[in-house]
Amino acid sequence: MAKELKELTSRSENYSQWYQDLVVKADLAENSAVRGCMVIKPYGYAIWEKMQRILDDMFKETGHHNAYFPLLIPKSFLSKEAEHVKGFAKECAVVTHYRLKANEAGDAVVVDPAAKLDEELIIRPTSETIIWNTYKNWIHSYRDLPLLINQWANVMRWEMRTRLFLRTSEFLWQEGHTAHATRQEAEEEAKRMQGVYAEFAEKHMAMPVVRGTKPEMERFAGAIDTYTIEAMMQDGKALQAGTSHFLGQNFGKAFDVTFIDKEGKTDYAWATSWGLSTRMVGALIMCHSDDNGLVLPPRLAPIQVVIVPIYKNEEQLNQIREKVAGIQSALKAMNISVKFDDNDTKKPGWKFAEYELKGVPVRLALGARDLENGTIEIMRRDTLEKETVSFEGIETRIKALLDDIQTNMFEKALNFRKQHIVNADSYDEFKEKLDQGNFIMAHWDGTIETETRIQEETKATIRCIPFDGDMTPGKCMVTGKPSARRVLFARAY
Amino acid sequence: MAKELKELTSRSENYSQWYQDLVVKADLAENSAVRGCMVIKPYGYAIWEKMQRILDDMFKETGHHNAYFPLLIPKSFLSKEAEHVKGFAKECAVVTHYRLKANEAGDAVVVDPAAKLDEELIIRPTSETIIWNTYKNWIHSYRDLPLLINQWANVMRWEMRTRLFLRTSEFLWQEGHTAHATRQEAEEEAKRMQGVYAEFAEKHMAMPVVRGTKPEMERFAGAIDTYTIEAMMQDGKALQAGTSHFLGQNFGKAFDVTFIDKEGKTDYAWATSWGLSTRMVGALIMCHSDDNGLVLPPRLAPIQVVIVPIYKNEEQLNQIREKVAGIQSALKAMNISVKFDDNDTKKPGWKFAEYELKGVPVRLALGARDLENGTIEIMRRDTLEKETVSFEGIETRIKALLDDIQTNMFEKALNFRKQHIVNADSYDEFKEKLDQGNFIMAHWDGTIETETRIQEETKATIRCIPFDGDMTPGKCMVTGKPSARRVLFARAY
Repeated sequence: MAKELKELTSRSENYSQWYQDLVVKADLAENSAVRGCMVIKPYGYAIWEKMQRILDDMFKETGHHNAYFPLLIPKSFLSKEAEHVKGFAKECAVVTHYRLKANEAGDAVVVDPAAKLDEELIIRPTSETIIWNTYKNWIHSYRDLPLLINQWANVMRWEMRTRLFLRTSEFLWQEGHTAHATRQEAEEEAKRMQGVYAEFAEKHMAMPVVRGTKPEMERFAGAIDTYTIEAMMQDGKALQAGTSHFLGQNFGKAFDVTFIDKEGKTDYAWATSWGLSTRMVGALIMCHSDDNGLVLPPRLAPIQVVIVPIYKNEEQLNQIREKVAGIQSALKAMNISVKFDDNDTKKPGWKFAEYELKGVPVRLALGARDLENGTIEIMRRDTLEKETVSFEGIETRIKALLDDIQTNMFEKALNFRKQHIVNADSYDEFKEKLDQGNFIMAHWDGTIETETRIQEETKATIRCIPFDGDMTPGKCMVTGKPSARRVLFARAY
Repeated sequence: MAKELKELTSRSENYSQWYQDLVVKADLAENSAVRGCMVIKPYGYAIWEKMQRILDDMFKETGHHNAYFPLLIPKSFLSKEAEHVKGFAKECAVVTHYRLKANEAGDAVVVDPAAKLDEELIIRPTSETIIWNTYKNWIHSYRDLPLLINQWANVMRWEMRTRLFLRTSEFLWQEGHTAHATRQEAEEEAKRMQGVYAEFAEKHMAMPVVRGTKPEMERFAGAIDTYTIEAMMQDGKALQAGTSHFLGQNFGKAFDVTFIDKEGKTDYAWATSWGLSTRMVGALIMCHSDDNGLVLPPRLAPIQVVIVPIYKNEEQLNQIREKVAGIQSALKAMNISVKFDDNDTKKPGWKFAEYELKGVPVRLALGARDLENGTIEIMRRDTLEKETVSFEGIETRIKALLDDIQTNMFEKALNFRKQHIVNADSYDEFKEKLDQGNFIMAHWDGTIETETRIQEETKATIRCIPFDGDMTPGKCMVTGKPSARRVLFARAY
């Protein structure tokens, strides 16, 4: 019964429903009473915390410091940078009042009309404006630069169609905001942080990414260049997994942030911003998981190893408990998180299904016969392979297995992607291969018109102009006009 | 010039101004463009991060898991728990609209009147309501309990008079929200978390606290009991440094959170909540710092050791650099954070003043003569004592010194408090001793009327009914009516 409750829609049946089921049934997140806002449940939050800790260390290693800026932004700030207005000053939550009062009956609260704000405040959809308004007071000389700051925060964009982790009105993220004395330094910073994101995705999430730049239409509002990493999900759709923007002097000019350079001349500061959000939890799920549930890479798994005892009576349980105590402490000493599940109200079969659903990378099972034989059953979640092995030296085997799972998951995702990145030389071929669930490298004439037409007709967008790959010029698959090189198209989340 | 800029108002001259100067000049925080909201600057945020990391570990050791709940709360939720309404449904930021649009001229944004919410949303002033509304779906059986959850979040209470860290409209905090099957278990949890806060304050912040319960008037809105830790600032005022609430079944009933107990009977879940905020950064400052600047306890200092080279030329600097490289790596290996400040644009005297202002616990200075003599100058920030010691074994000396500073700061604060907790047996004596900057233990008749009168006449409040101390009955200093025991009065932040 309990097991059936946990059953997922399969990916082939309905990929989108599979995702939705999995997020809820694996206790990662759920919708809240507030439209479009999610509750991130402890297990889902534990994954995000692991991501945070790793990224935070990477940011600090590259010289960044954390700070915190206000949640609310004066409405007028959003109009200061022209492109930024167009991109962000739309679906925003607006604070208009600052007080409630009891209603006349005294049984409910109403908004106090006397407490109306002179200027409305916007819940930050992103913080460039409030941060650059602050930087104005922090930056005077080239000696104050570079200013390398990151913020961990919640942001809000009023989304009409939401999906847990992938698109929610409120989400959690980090946003880096840096200021530099030269264009070159800012461009290097933007690229460096794209590199940090790519390393994080590939090394820790085991998720291969394509690095490149966004075409103009897909750029961040206010950016000169947007550097992106694009990942392939198992349905062949793309997920933008972190972006880093070179903002030029746009925000420096909009907020009048100037500095005196080494030669004594005044110039506007150069800017970057870069962000990665709880969306990555969604990407992690969609990249690796299967019809049995989550498949988590060991580096991000809240529980890396689970031990399930199989016993008929208290005496056997105690023998098993004694036997595994050593494994537990040995694994903890190796910084491997381990859970011994001796919950007596659940059967081993239920537990096996549960930990498969939750994506625990390694499962150990131990029964009376194992105690006699000095053996233990070990299962790896990524391939579902299990074998019975000697109890002797199990810790070393687990350590190696975790590394192997991490590598294997990356290789598997990389192979999948290699099989699903294809060239298309005509628009018909493009549409056909797109419908088969591929990323497509195709020639494009470089115009927004053609890009828009392709998007309207096929729902595919240009994910990026990749750094690597075929640089041969050709002809646009739609218009036949000259194309400098192939670019990456896909349907995207 | 630079040094003068950094000069602080002295504590004796104007304690409040000293605090304000210090927060700004030590680069901890500043006011933002949004009324009542602060910007936490990197150095201030680094202190908060250290606090977070320590507390988070303590919460996890006591079995809690982190999760995340929505920023916005439907207005109607605030009216569901009667006492909670009175306490919180007042000074709240209210979201009424979800879209902006360009004005007619196209040069600014205005609120789109068509995008009005059916029900207004409130930026969380605290999250009991939205969390208990969620718990309703998570709790069905005693097997689902206890539910031990913590959230790190920003909250907002529209304050009219704000002060950096101490009272801001938006602040950062953690809020624990737990659900239990029995009254006893919930009460134990509330007390346990008060204990965690007390340990954090005393062991890590080096700030002694008085533990006790709040009198009815000072209780959290919706609580049956509020457990508090109260710290003494250097002006003799109290600062409530963390509270833990036993909420009874108030929220269980308000949000209809029931469970089936072991006997198959249905009951409402029992609740606690507990919170500690960025206010603690303010407490840390006001408890320890002096007229030269911050004094940070080593366990919370972002930089624990700074090394200032004193040199006449590049060659000397290089010799010093070589000499200290070993210290730096040895300290890092001991997990001690160290900064070598070889900034060439600042003089050693400026650096000395700067690191005193920033409260770095240990300062090392090293010049040409030290190189010859095999010595180094070491200064401790808490007492400002310095001595020239042998370079040999300096790491071990530093380690011991950091421990000593941590202990000494606690002892100093404890002695100060001991000298400033006094008994008063008449109302006149009470007023006199209060004006001298004391915490006062006095008899009180237990009524809200008397408590209110004392507050109106003297601005002192009952900080808590301490767990320890004199339990002898007596007579109320104001009304002469019977008093069960002395309670703790003080003026408070």
